[in-house]
Amino acid sequence: MRLATLRDGTRDGRLSLVRSDGARIADASRIARSLQAALDDWDDVEPRLREMDAELEAGRIVTDPLILHHMQAPLPRAYEWVDGSAYLNHVKLVRRARGADLPPSLEKDPLVYQGGSGVLLGPADDVRLADPLMGLDFEGEIAVILGDVPMGARADDAVKHVRLVTFVNDVTLRNLVSNELAKGFGFFQSKPATAFAPFVATPDELGGAWHDGRAWLQFKVWLNGRLVGDLETGPEMHFSFAQLLEHLALTRAFTAGTILGSGTVSNADVKRGISCLAERRMLEILSSPDRQAKTPFLRAGDRVAMEAFDVQGRSVFGRLEQKVIATG
Amino acid sequence: MRLATLRDGTRDGRLSLVRSDGARIADASRIARSLQAALDDWDDVEPRLREMDAELEAGRIVTDPLILHHMQAPLPRAYEWVDGSAYLNHVKLVRRARGADLPPSLEKDPLVYQGGSGVLLGPADDVRLADPLMGLDFEGEIAVILGDVPMGARADDAVKHVRLVTFVNDVTLRNLVSNELAKGFGFFQSKPATAFAPFVATPDELGGAWHDGRAWLQFKVWLNGRLVGDLETGPEMHFSFAQLLEHLALTRAFTAGTILGSGTVSNADVKRGISCLAERRMLEILSSPDRQAKTPFLRAGDRVAMEAFDVQGRSVFGRLEQKVIATG
Repeated sequence: MRLATLRDGTRDGRLSLVRSDGARIADASRIARSLQAALDDWDDVEPRLREMDAELEAGRIVTDPLILHHMQAPLPRAYEWVDGSAYLNHVKLVRRARGADLPPSLEKDPLVYQGGSGVLLGPADDVRLADPLMGLDFEGEIAVILGDVPMGARADDAVKHVRLVTFVNDVTLRNLVSNELAKGFGFFQSKPATAFAPFVATPDELGGAWHDGRAWLQFKVWLNGRLVGDLETGPEMHFSFAQLLEHLALTRAFTAGTILGSGTVSNADVKRGISCLAERRMLEILSSPDRQAKTPFLRAGDRVAMEAFDVQGRSVFGRLEQKVIATG
Repeated sequence: MRLATLRDGTRDGRLSLVRSDGARIADASRIARSLQAALDDWDDVEPRLREMDAELEAGRIVTDPLILHHMQAPLPRAYEWVDGSAYLNHVKLVRRARGADLPPSLEKDPLVYQGGSGVLLGPADDVRLADPLMGLDFEGEIAVILGDVPMGARADDAVKHVRLVTFVNDVTLRNLVSNELAKGFGFFQSKPATAFAPFVATPDELGGAWHDGRAWLQFKVWLNGRLVGDLETGPEMHFSFAQLLEHLALTRAFTAGTILGSGTVSNADVKRGISCLAERRMLEILSSPDRQAKTPFLRAGDRVAMEAFDVQGRSVFGRLEQKVIATG
């Protein structure tokens, strides 16, 4: 079952079911008015949504065409957005790029940061850039949406807390990162609003592509229409979502609708390309005689697209297509 | 006007108005079912709440006694909790305590971190401690709750975005801080659920105690019944809430119900005492021959209380009274 949120003028949007071909959606707001409302009452709501989904697939209910720019983030405002950094190849490259040390506990103690969750962007929302010197970058990531998680939850129990899977574009202002992290309190201004894929899928919808607390998908990234990344999301995710969840829950509980990200998808094989510009820039610095990055950060008018495919070639979470606009 | 949230079995609790003596509350859920619902539609809801508040003060509506442990956090789950560190005396002492450098931009560039907001504690909720070695500490802070804030909002416009004022106990696990900050991504496990005063007040309710983007109140803190802090919240708040808000909004927008904290209230005059144990421990280290802290961190059974008073001696946000319980 896949769900999406249709823009309807309310703060939380309207819950919709997505037809299996991804081309049409059906209004599910008579079951739960929003995705958050569904997550608040998941045990009761899920079976009713699945019944309606069967009706949808049987062609027995009214549908509307999916129009990407009518879709909001599945959760247009969420109670928490916690982002890991579980692809260690990315951590190594990006820290090398800004001359920062690798934490000695890198392979044992997950890196996570608390992101802003009050305003989340839809899959076709513009990325607003106040100043091109801030170094705007995209970051493709897998994310899960959790149910209620008690304090002290363990990795072994984590799978039952994962309600939905999707991907995000975790927009970053690279040139603000070093100064901000040097202050010691983590990211803030360097992390503008995160954008979301149009669909969220229940784990069973991924079939064999969901196991060991990871999504095993082919993740494609385009910049201005050109494919720049064709990555595998499964094998190099060092910490699983289950391990990340145990890390999160050590000292507090989480409410239904908390979003947990994998960190930037990254493969050690450079032929697979990138899901963020910082990695390509680092590789250019390392391989060029003058040790300069040639790839610029994003500028007004640039277009970023992302999509995640299963082995049958189906676009599991739909397509994200965003344009950068200047607001400065 | 002062508002509070009564526990009623729902995730968001029931919106209540607080009578001026703080002793009784009235069910306001016929106007807005929860504080978040009120904030979502503040321009319409506020005048209706003020009408009801006048009826309440005139003794013309039904009230119930305030029972502290029936109260939830005013927002039991919030969309964002962003905490500044605007009392520089605290920043200087705490960083000295853990041997960390002061950021060179300390007086010009506010320190803020993104806190967890999905599970927030009420004023009489227990603080759960998994392991005493984590170094549990309290932190008293002033906080404001914002309306919708657009990206690029300036300090001059900030006052119109401040809907409500309150205080919080920003619980911290001191012995987890150093390792966590050394990883570079800010606080996470070291910041368990934050607890809130029972009442939130509109800025006008503070009268002359709300000006220059700051609350000018007397903040008292008790540990196991003994007064340990009697602080002024106004004069030493180096960055105002207006300045903090401008810092936040540089690269993104915020949704109604975002909570913004002042950081630990701290006065340079040591006779005023403390609103967190870390400061007293640092003073002990600096003043004792053996350079050891004598004050232990919180243990199971310890009780913390906080209250903020105006010049008339009124407890503006009510009393927070929490007990530490062991869960490990």
